Amino acid sequence: MSMEQLRRKLGQVSDLGAAAGLMSWDQETQMPREAARVRGLQMATLAGLSHELFTDPQTGELLKAAQPDNETDRAIVQVAGRDFEKATKLPTEFVEEQTRAENEAHHAWIDARKNSDFASFVPYLQKMMDLARRQADLLGYEDHPYDALLDLYEPAMKAEQVKTVFADLRDRTLPLLRRITAAADAADYSVLTRAFPFADQKAFAWRIAGEAFGLRPDFARQDESAHPFQTNFSRSDLRITTRTEEYWPACLFGTWHESGHAMYERGVAEKWERTPVSRGASLGVHESQSRMFENLLARSQPFWNRYFDELAAVAPAVTAGLDAATLYKAVNRVQPSLIRVEADEVTYNFHIMLRFELELALLEGSLKVQDLPEAWNAKMQEYLGLTPPNDAQGVLQDIHWSAGLIGYFPTYSLGNLLSVQLLEAAKQDAAIAAGIEQANYAPLLAWLVENVHQYGRSRLPNEIAQGATGRTLTADPYVKYLHDKYEGIYGLK
Amino acid sequence: MSMEQLRRKLGQVSDLGAAAGLMSWDQETQMPREAARVRGLQMATLAGLSHELFTDPQTGELLKAAQPDNETDRAIVQVAGRDFEKATKLPTEFVEEQTRAENEAHHAWIDARKNSDFASFVPYLQKMMDLARRQADLLGYEDHPYDALLDLYEPAMKAEQVKTVFADLRDRTLPLLRRITAAADAADYSVLTRAFPFADQKAFAWRIAGEAFGLRPDFARQDESAHPFQTNFSRSDLRITTRTEEYWPACLFGTWHESGHAMYERGVAEKWERTPVSRGASLGVHESQSRMFENLLARSQPFWNRYFDELAAVAPAVTAGLDAATLYKAVNRVQPSLIRVEADEVTYNFHIMLRFELELALLEGSLKVQDLPEAWNAKMQEYLGLTPPNDAQGVLQDIHWSAGLIGYFPTYSLGNLLSVQLLEAAKQDAAIAAGIEQANYAPLLAWLVENVHQYGRSRLPNEIAQGATGRTLTADPYVKYLHDKYEGIYGLK
Repeated sequence: MSMEQLRRKLGQVSDLGAAAGLMSWDQETQMPREAARVRGLQMATLAGLSHELFTDPQTGELLKAAQPDNETDRAIVQVAGRDFEKATKLPTEFVEEQTRAENEAHHAWIDARKNSDFASFVPYLQKMMDLARRQADLLGYEDHPYDALLDLYEPAMKAEQVKTVFADLRDRTLPLLRRITAAADAADYSVLTRAFPFADQKAFAWRIAGEAFGLRPDFARQDESAHPFQTNFSRSDLRITTRTEEYWPACLFGTWHESGHAMYERGVAEKWERTPVSRGASLGVHESQSRMFENLLARSQPFWNRYFDELAAVAPAVTAGLDAATLYKAVNRVQPSLIRVEADEVTYNFHIMLRFELELALLEGSLKVQDLPEAWNAKMQEYLGLTPPNDAQGVLQDIHWSAGLIGYFPTYSLGNLLSVQLLEAAKQDAAIAAGIEQANYAPLLAWLVENVHQYGRSRLPNEIAQGATGRTLTADPYVKYLHDKYEGIYGLK
Repeated sequence: MSMEQLRRKLGQVSDLGAAAGLMSWDQETQMPREAARVRGLQMATLAGLSHELFTDPQTGELLKAAQPDNETDRAIVQVAGRDFEKATKLPTEFVEEQTRAENEAHHAWIDARKNSDFASFVPYLQKMMDLARRQADLLGYEDHPYDALLDLYEPAMKAEQVKTVFADLRDRTLPLLRRITAAADAADYSVLTRAFPFADQKAFAWRIAGEAFGLRPDFARQDESAHPFQTNFSRSDLRITTRTEEYWPACLFGTWHESGHAMYERGVAEKWERTPVSRGASLGVHESQSRMFENLLARSQPFWNRYFDELAAVAPAVTAGLDAATLYKAVNRVQPSLIRVEADEVTYNFHIMLRFELELALLEGSLKVQDLPEAWNAKMQEYLGLTPPNDAQGVLQDIHWSAGLIGYFPTYSLGNLLSVQLLEAAKQDAAIAAGIEQANYAPLLAWLVENVHQYGRSRLPNEIAQGATGRTLTADPYVKYLHDKYEGIYGLK
């Protein structure tokens, strides 16, 4: 009986979450401009009611009284219990203080970035760091306060594990990057901004998302937004967004990136519908799927062997004078740059390592907020050989810290690493490996559903890695992948 | 203090309503097909939570304790009090029984209509009528059980008043209809299905909705759906839908109809935002606005004098060989027909009167459900001189009764009557009258905001009619309007 009551309550919380998610999606993709103010109030109400409903003492009692008699229900009680514990550890006053501070820091960050004026942002960022530290204390941790925050995005992951993996990654890919940047590069990158009408970019990206990756209009849709994202309101209601610009790879690879997120959500077992288990296991595991589609599959030679002609049919101006091999090289350009979101596969992780190291130092107190730009610029020089001309293109470029998201950045690289680790494991199956060579991803997708997607949040990220690949997360496969791929492209073998 | 608490609570209820409304809009316009099942559960949760939140005893206490010290708050307490009384008069078990019966009746109606098999629908319709009668008893009434149901859609309106007004309308327009159908008609109606690409229909209708009626993308948007409707989530977030077909007037006049609904919601005073006062006063008053835009304005000669050239610019195939005068005649064709939603201004109200008379007889018990088709067909013959070839095109054509909506139909005609009554009152102002002759509706819109829109639900429909026109609802202006317009078009003067 109490299991049924618990399911009912979690269903209500899930439905309120779906409504809030729809309001947010609508705001980014459909809503008339002037509706923003009231929409903000409406979304705050939904968040408040949902939090109230979930954290009221009755939920705790139901969780205690629940006697799950099968694996499905056991996972529900376990995951909901974890969420309940976290949600009730933070006093309402703290959450409200954090919300206010985030709001202020967000606006301060917008101004600071616009004026490239880090000094004006210092008090706000200091406040966010203080709150992060207090939040870590409230949530509790064993070894490092960072663990408490990281756990919000990557359950059970530890700073120590990230440090080890990142050190290995850095030591083994920095030499590769040096060799690449020193190599001669005769490719013509102007093809990446050749004329490709925006509507055609969108339509091509979406069609191939269906053909190659199985994301179909029966259960998904594509819209435009300023910042691409994936959201969903059930496993049969997936929404991805894209943006179009002259640099057409942004739309294509962005769409396929979000398709990876969406197909993960699609693959979660239906038995967990409208429960907190029914989402991807973590940001890192999520990113492993989006990066796999975007980079390991769509930025591969076999992919373009198969889809070059289709691209040529809709965008002849883009492909004129090219073939699948030259296109493949063009979309895999390695170039150290200042901005994370524009980074290629080789340099991307250095942007993340830099942020992770700075977050740790800030949280430990060994780095002061006001000294952040200097530390940032030094690391940019060390890793990528670049110095930002101003803080807007440096330490102020990302929204995360202003939103109090400390411990979030590492998940991007954890996802990159896991993507290759999973793909290599999947390719042990000859049919999957052969499929990939033909850009036929159906066998791979089935393997991903079986080994990753179906579990939703019922397994922890490290358990998923262990179960699917036989070992916990390691930089090894990723390092090998980068060497193979880019030594080939840059003729370094 | 309790006023503030009441405001807060009503705000939450309003926000949940907005979320439910968005889910519904999304379902009709955007949602992937396979999402339907879970969306149904999500919408049920929102409806349940909203009902729970509003009807809990605390709301009653807040309403009792509230001491509104200004007109704005007084209206909130009054309207919320009315809603609370209604909502708490129906026991939960009754509402649940009604919901289940509606659901069953809806599916039975779909099948019955498909197979034109009224007999199979009888037990379901009988159940809906029994429930309607019980609902009337639970809600309470003084003179006639119909009053209790009518009051749900047209607050404080009485069956007796509707009877009187409808009798007058019938007696004075039936002779006009006879004269029109007997008149020679040389107009070429094939223009109404001339080639007009769907995307161009939509774009033209939407652009003119902005230019002529003030419905602009800053606070409104247009989408497609199977059945056109208007909804909104605040006065700055208005959504209308349209559908496109070969018969292009459906898209154009449908869009302008929904624009009337939208601009009404737009005009409600902002001080009532997120309260139950912040909606149109009734279905009838709402329909007066949509019908005014659709028929009194957009189906007028001055409108086409102004917009004929713009139509010609986007749809030259439609306007070829026509001028504003011939187009005006074509879009005002009078032709008795079987289907309400396709009816013109002269015949439309007979469809409504027929339904109103049958509803009264069913509720009084003087007509049995199984005898409904016979009664329907007899009245169709009496009013429009037609006999449906089957029940699908007769008694089964509308969804309303299967959804338990008894007392709803009259509001369509009440809206028609009020539309002319209001317009005639507005035209007492010379600037407004002159504007209308130029199809410049800004002065009229300002008058409507001042005399109708701004009040939201703070005034009852009859109070609005009285305040804006100096008298309660009457058929007089509408009868005169029909005679003037159609005697002109059909050369009967």
